[in-house]
Amino acid sequence: MKGSLLYEGKAKRVYYTTGDSDQLVLSYKDDATAFNGKKKDEFAGKGRLNNLITSKVFQYLHQQNIQTHFIEALNDTEQLVHQTTIIPLEVVVRNQAAGSITRRLGIQEKNSFTPPIIELFYKKDELNDPLINDVHAYHLTDITEQELTFIKQQALEINSQLQELFHSAGLILVDFKLEFGRLNDGAIVLSDEISPDTCRLWDTHTGEKMDKDVFREGLGSLIDTYEKILNRLEENVCTK
Amino acid sequence: MKGSLLYEGKAKRVYYTTGDSDQLVLSYKDDATAFNGKKKDEFAGKGRLNNLITSKVFQYLHQQNIQTHFIEALNDTEQLVHQTTIIPLEVVVRNQAAGSITRRLGIQEKNSFTPPIIELFYKKDELNDPLINDVHAYHLTDITEQELTFIKQQALEINSQLQELFHSAGLILVDFKLEFGRLNDGAIVLSDEISPDTCRLWDTHTGEKMDKDVFREGLGSLIDTYEKILNRLEENVCTK
Repeated sequence: MKGSLLYEGKAKRVYYTTGDSDQLVLSYKDDATAFNGKKKDEFAGKGRLNNLITSKVFQYLHQQNIQTHFIEALNDTEQLVHQTTIIPLEVVVRNQAAGSITRRLGIQEKNSFTPPIIELFYKKDELNDPLINDVHAYHLTDITEQELTFIKQQALEINSQLQELFHSAGLILVDFKLEFGRLNDGAIVLSDEISPDTCRLWDTHTGEKMDKDVFREGLGSLIDTYEKILNRLEENVCTK
Repeated sequence: MKGSLLYEGKAKRVYYTTGDSDQLVLSYKDDATAFNGKKKDEFAGKGRLNNLITSKVFQYLHQQNIQTHFIEALNDTEQLVHQTTIIPLEVVVRNQAAGSITRRLGIQEKNSFTPPIIELFYKKDELNDPLINDVHAYHLTDITEQELTFIKQQALEINSQLQELFHSAGLILVDFKLEFGRLNDGAIVLSDEISPDTCRLWDTHTGEKMDKDVFREGLGSLIDTYEKILNRLEENVCTK
């Protein structure tokens, strides 16, 4: 089923499928990177956890009528998805201040944003993924004003749905990063992954950081933390 | 007439007036700073040139029915203005790529932007005046969505008017920075200055840089350049 390698990213390899040309296989790696690749490590089992967590989250979003590129998990580390052309934007939704925004804008950690703040970053490693505004996005990518409005609406809707999902697993969704892609028919859908690599999740009761900040800030075992996230989702969220 | 010092900035001192409490005196300094204060120098006569150029430009904008804080030039280095509470945003309008945007987004110098790109920067020295988006502006300042829309419309209208003004003086307006302030009655008007310190101006025929880049990049005499700008405006633009 899995064909030749199309692309290797920091966290995943992307393969063609031998069958349907509109489908790809995403293979999650055990690598962890932070600070735009400056900090790197490998954690046995991380690929499995992010694959299973993302699969669970995307199944949940499908139940809430949000379209994504996801089709199904194939095994522990691989999932089948619809092929999309990724729009080179990282769409970040922030419910509370944490990470780069605290340093960039001098906002204290935990400061709440109502309504949530949406930020766009231009996906370009050699420029360190700079923050951009809407007009930059029109110049740098092929999206239209109407499409960007749709992407922002989707991001806010996904935020509401994910807040509920993670709340039921005893987690606060602090912020997260989304990527969108274009299906072959032109429709824009949520792509990439949603995992503790791409979300900040704090324990509702203890406030403990349960996401990639464990790796960024050296706070403990990344694998134990991600395993807990998967267990909590499996115990509390029905996606049958 | 000039009262006590209210505030000293990098390029100007601001004084109270002894008469009307709604009016201030701006006194232009001879200091030049660049790269957020990292490069500094003093040029005898620069204060006079920026005061007279800004006065000329603001008089021209008044003729085009654009409201500003400007009242009149008092002497070579000082001007009388209406007191405003400055909104801590630098509003940058770009017709062509030059300076920071070329490095930040990997866009080649002279690349044209149609429509022009408007960028907002949060005026905060200790954060290096970071680029922000509209939603950041609502969180960081007291402006409303409606007011930001007004500011952007004004910025584009001012851009059109200034392109024409500088064109008649043989100059291409590449980009410029505006600041807006609130009058005591709450109305938002253009404030601060418009000078070769805050605009990129290229000679229409030779392409020569005729603005603060002369200082930033060590291209020649800043005073000779600014003197040429003033002379060209005085020869070609009637503001009587």
